[in-house]
Amino acid sequence: MRVGVLTGGGDCPGLNAVIRGIVRKGVQEYGYEFVGFRDGWRGPLEGDTVPLGIPAVRGILPRGGTILGSSRTNPFKERDGIRRIKESLAKEEVQALITIGGEDTLGVAARLSDEFGVPCVGVPKTIDNDLSATDYTFGFDTAVGIATEAIDRLHTTAESHMRVLVVEVMGRHAGWIALHSGLAGGANVILIPEQRFDVEQVCSWVTSRFRASYAPIVVVAEGAMPKDGEMVLKDGSLDSFGHVRLSGVGEWLAKEIERRTGKEARTTVLGHVQRGGTPSAFDRWLATRFGLHAIDAVRDGDFGKMVALRGTDVVRVPIGEATARLKTVDPELYREVGVFFG
Amino acid sequence: MRVGVLTGGGDCPGLNAVIRGIVRKGVQEYGYEFVGFRDGWRGPLEGDTVPLGIPAVRGILPRGGTILGSSRTNPFKERDGIRRIKESLAKEEVQALITIGGEDTLGVAARLSDEFGVPCVGVPKTIDNDLSATDYTFGFDTAVGIATEAIDRLHTTAESHMRVLVVEVMGRHAGWIALHSGLAGGANVILIPEQRFDVEQVCSWVTSRFRASYAPIVVVAEGAMPKDGEMVLKDGSLDSFGHVRLSGVGEWLAKEIERRTGKEARTTVLGHVQRGGTPSAFDRWLATRFGLHAIDAVRDGDFGKMVALRGTDVVRVPIGEATARLKTVDPELYREVGVFFG
Amino acid sequence: MRVGVLTGGGDCPGLNAVIRGIVRKGVQEYGYEFVGFRDGWRGPLEGDTVPLGIPAVRGILPRGGTILGSSRTNPFKERDGIRRIKESLAKEEVQALITIGGEDTLGVAARLSDEFGVPCVGVPKTIDNDLSATDYTFGFDTAVGIATEAIDRLHTTAESHMRVLVVEVMGRHAGWIALHSGLAGGANVILIPEQRFDVEQVCSWVTSRFRASYAPIVVVAEGAMPKDGEMVLKDGSLDSFGHVRLSGVGEWLAKEIERRTGKEARTTVLGHVQRGGTPSAFDRWLATRFGLHAIDAVRDGDFGKMVALRGTDVVRVPIGEATARLKTVDPELYREVGVFFG
Amino acid sequence: MRVGVLTGGGDCPGLNAVIRGIVRKGVQEYGYEFVGFRDGWRGPLEGDTVPLGIPAVRGILPRGGTILGSSRTNPFKERDGIRRIKESLAKEEVQALITIGGEDTLGVAARLSDEFGVPCVGVPKTIDNDLSATDYTFGFDTAVGIATEAIDRLHTTAESHMRVLVVEVMGRHAGWIALHSGLAGGANVILIPEQRFDVEQVCSWVTSRFRASYAPIVVVAEGAMPKDGEMVLKDGSLDSFGHVRLSGVGEWLAKEIERRTGKEARTTVLGHVQRGGTPSAFDRWLATRFGLHAIDAVRDGDFGKMVALRGTDVVRVPIGEATARLKTVDPELYREVGVFFG
Repeated sequence: MRVGVLTGGGDCPGLNAVIRGIVRKGVQEYGYEFVGFRDGWRGPLEGDTVPLGIPAVRGILPRGGTILGSSRTNPFKERDGIRRIKESLAKEEVQALITIGGEDTLGVAARLSDEFGVPCVGVPKTIDNDLSATDYTFGFDTAVGIATEAIDRLHTTAESHMRVLVVEVMGRHAGWIALHSGLAGGANVILIPEQRFDVEQVCSWVTSRFRASYAPIVVVAEGAMPKDGEMVLKDGSLDSFGHVRLSGVGEWLAKEIERRTGKEARTTVLGHVQRGGTPSAFDRWLATRFGLHAIDAVRDGDFGKMVALRGTDVVRVPIGEATARLKTVDPELYREVGVFFG
Repeated sequence: MRVGVLTGGGDCPGLNAVIRGIVRKGVQEYGYEFVGFRDGWRGPLEGDTVPLGIPAVRGILPRGGTILGSSRTNPFKERDGIRRIKESLAKEEVQALITIGGEDTLGVAARLSDEFGVPCVGVPKTIDNDLSATDYTFGFDTAVGIATEAIDRLHTTAESHMRVLVVEVMGRHAGWIALHSGLAGGANVILIPEQRFDVEQVCSWVTSRFRASYAPIVVVAEGAMPKDGEMVLKDGSLDSFGHVRLSGVGEWLAKEIERRTGKEARTTVLGHVQRGGTPSAFDRWLATRFGLHAIDAVRDGDFGKMVALRGTDVVRVPIGEATARLKTVDPELYREVGVFFG
Repeated sequence: MRVGVLTGGGDCPGLNAVIRGIVRKGVQEYGYEFVGFRDGWRGPLEGDTVPLGIPAVRGILPRGGTILGSSRTNPFKERDGIRRIKESLAKEEVQALITIGGEDTLGVAARLSDEFGVPCVGVPKTIDNDLSATDYTFGFDTAVGIATEAIDRLHTTAESHMRVLVVEVMGRHAGWIALHSGLAGGANVILIPEQRFDVEQVCSWVTSRFRASYAPIVVVAEGAMPKDGEMVLKDGSLDSFGHVRLSGVGEWLAKEIERRTGKEARTTVLGHVQRGGTPSAFDRWLATRFGLHAIDAVRDGDFGKMVALRGTDVVRVPIGEATARLKTVDPELYREVGVFFG
Repeated sequence: MRVGVLTGGGDCPGLNAVIRGIVRKGVQEYGYEFVGFRDGWRGPLEGDTVPLGIPAVRGILPRGGTILGSSRTNPFKERDGIRRIKESLAKEEVQALITIGGEDTLGVAARLSDEFGVPCVGVPKTIDNDLSATDYTFGFDTAVGIATEAIDRLHTTAESHMRVLVVEVMGRHAGWIALHSGLAGGANVILIPEQRFDVEQVCSWVTSRFRASYAPIVVVAEGAMPKDGEMVLKDGSLDSFGHVRLSGVGEWLAKEIERRTGKEARTTVLGHVQRGGTPSAFDRWLATRFGLHAIDAVRDGDFGKMVALRGTDVVRVPIGEATARLKTVDPELYREVGVFFG
């Protein structure tokens, strides 16, 4: 049996741990051979491969990123994409393809598997933790840890100067990183994309925190929006480089808080550091187990499935089902955490 | 409503986060008052209390240990223990008691609640993660993270000198810390209490690792035992201070590996650093949510229950049921991880 | 003897360690009493004080920020500033004033001491390490450590996507943080305020790095400027919030690199996380020793002096001399590090 | 010009950074070729070499240990050792040899250079920081950082149980790691090899700490000895494995404290984790600069010299002079730190 492996979408700590898990078990227990496709779907599209065996996966467990490279290439948007992929797999004599990726990468895998008979197994990957059907995705714990450490650090600087510190963390469509790191970091306000926020309410929490002689930390997901959403867009459009991220909601919010409360406010945008570097122990554990279970699915011929975490078990679910719906923060959970606001 | 809180057993990162969660929600949402009992069951036994309100829990989220102190005092082993506890609670006008602790502390709470009508709610705590009915206990993730970082560090020293490094981690009865940190740290052998190990097999993994030009890391839980168990006990008894821990299985194993393989071997006993210091983001999250749900159980009058993690939900289970059985490593899971041995 | 203490300017990890060192030695060895002035020079100006004794300094060694608060208030710019300060000191019966701060705070202390007979001892503080007369200032090592860890993390994300990552670090007038963290983090280009950079040269380093199949990391101090300086200013002026920091040189440079090389480039602005949180072991050591030596200077009546690090010794130098000249990166040292560019 | 490089003695974070600095500058600026000798002096003795060029040093900056391996082999104790080394160097056409190591390795280099005409340049390496002529050695800052973090963690566990925690750190002949980490970690007692300690005095500090309602942390260097030194040796000799380290002074001291004060005491022996893993930013900086200056010494034909740190400068000193005397903790400095005891 010859198995192909590819990683697609944004990088995420734990990708290498998945690859290592797949290859170690595949070679040692099942005697499989492997081929790596480079840069997500670009690899099979263009027939760009790298050798993948025990030597290639030595020492990669603690390394962030992916040894296979990644891209956002979508074969359904490429001319003759499906035919070219099938030809690549045939040429490489690949009988199964393990695709590690997020909504887009897995969406392609689902269609290839269901509609075009390409034998795919999926491994879910999103640093945002917003993929249905799995309790957690790897990379998320690492990102939350990095953001929490940053918030820990910002507390002392906020209190020395009695300033508001706004921390913008990742999360375009779901507020998981904001919610977890904000709670763990003892933030006084947490704003998520799932629920438009009221700037006046934010300012009132900020003010009450100052009244208690403490300096407030506001954690805001990059995708969070005020109730009057146009404000962000309007200001964002003035950015000289077209980078929404850097004059995003964090900057806008700090400015609004300053204007409305008269208190000094500063923004820190954590950015790419949240997705780089060595994975946390939890993510290494989860990613490795995903890898071990993905190769088991291949051995079982259980294609069109994705591995997923349920409690402490790794299970299999249809890829399509898993990517059908974004997993957002439950309003009840957000309300639960709200006891710490202000 | 006046609620008592105590923490019993060994300390564990996250205890303070639980206390903070209880008090913040109890005061702000339910208008409760709180009293802290010092040093586990010793507090209510001797009527030793500390004030517990919002000011007391300020800033304690990231701090390890417990602001309430802890002990292993067991009221059932104390003269008139139950009567004295009931009198203390009555004197303090406490109508509910939240007990945060491991098997022993919760065992007492279960009996007090079930047999003596003391209205207890439990919060499970064990750094070893060996308590049934909950997917994880707080403190465990922190311990695994510390052990993993230590293993990461030991790799380079092992390889520079081509030595065996044996790392002894916590876990008297269950191998969870060894299993998770060993997997996450890329250990070449992981030995757990649940399964007696064969020294010859360990030496054969060690030798095969050297043949591949790498230096082996052996992670061993303090409670792991060789098939010929007498060996450890016999050697352990020679320790001059009566401390089994420090001439425990790690030391014994390194000596055996040296003797049998002729390779240099060294031991590191991680010890107390695994249970101290600031909790990981995951543990802060879990501990805080346990606290929030424990006070909800009090509000609901749902006594005799313990909060527990199931997937991403916090649920309630009978305390007695939860402590009835030790949660050990499933042989199937141990076999799954075994693909990385050697 | 009654001694006043104040901290001025931006916060910096280690301030609390200085205060603790002063108080512990002053109380225990010399029997002094202390009074803390709040928020830098604002404290003595407005007679705003806090009690400062052994209890106040318990547990503050590992805490970032300053328990005394800080501000940028300058008494020479306040009406009757000097008279009000003298009155405050007289009212508090303070016979010596220890001022912990940067160029501005120490500049005031130098004048107060030399021209107005206020008995001041200085402790140098600048996270930027740009103060003459001392080998290092505390806080710098912590900032470099944080920036280095961020750069370590960004390497894997850069290589997974074969992107340029531009990291903007602190340093308005001196490139010490950029130089040290860039070297320690294995950056491929380091740009400092001391030497205007040539964008074409930067692009050529970037390109040569890609040719070697690696992704480049560019570390740029916030105060670095291209040879054609107008470019930054022009673009900077378009920022909608008037925050130069966030559409500063890092953003501008990434855009230029993208435009000129055709490679994707991203920017991370580390911001306030560099100055917050627990100090590194080195900074705790240095700050504590500065505190111990500052109180010795008070005991010796050696006013108008500042403590400073020379090799491994703490010495005393005239405050005025120390703040007269900015300590910038020696061109020879920058050239030495340049061997790693490209 | 063809240059040999070897690393000898115990491993130390930063060794790879030195090697990288040497090779990058040697190849890029001077056009030199390099050969690596394996495992310290064993390499040239047995003619065991590895290729050493730009590809070999890629990515090694953040990695602990040494890519060249290490050993304690001493050519002066080997039959025909000097002749064999000279033959190896001749065969490899090596015209200069850079030796990175501690007292023993550099002692050999000094004699080879001074008495036998082998053109050696030295780079000082000792995690214990006990080498004369240099302000600091690389690896020391990393070790101090790791020990400080461990002490930080132990505080909370000590206070939760009101126990004494004894932390045994590295340092056989010099107490630098104990002194720096003990100060930075807020230890209440620090014991170093340079000054025999009085157990009664230690117990009195411990007791006074408990009286103030805090739990004491005692940091003890592995080479520290009580005034009645026989006690340690006698107890140490009872260890069943002949490992002095693990039933060393830390264990002995905890037992004595328990016996004399009646307080519970526990020991943590940090061991090998102190010397493994990624170097701190400071050590990467120092080690890299040592490498850059060592190759400059080769270029200048300045043999028999060792690079050394003086303040912020890297200078050259005669190897022999540098290793002639152990750098121990100055009694005055120890007294300075003593203000924090008790």
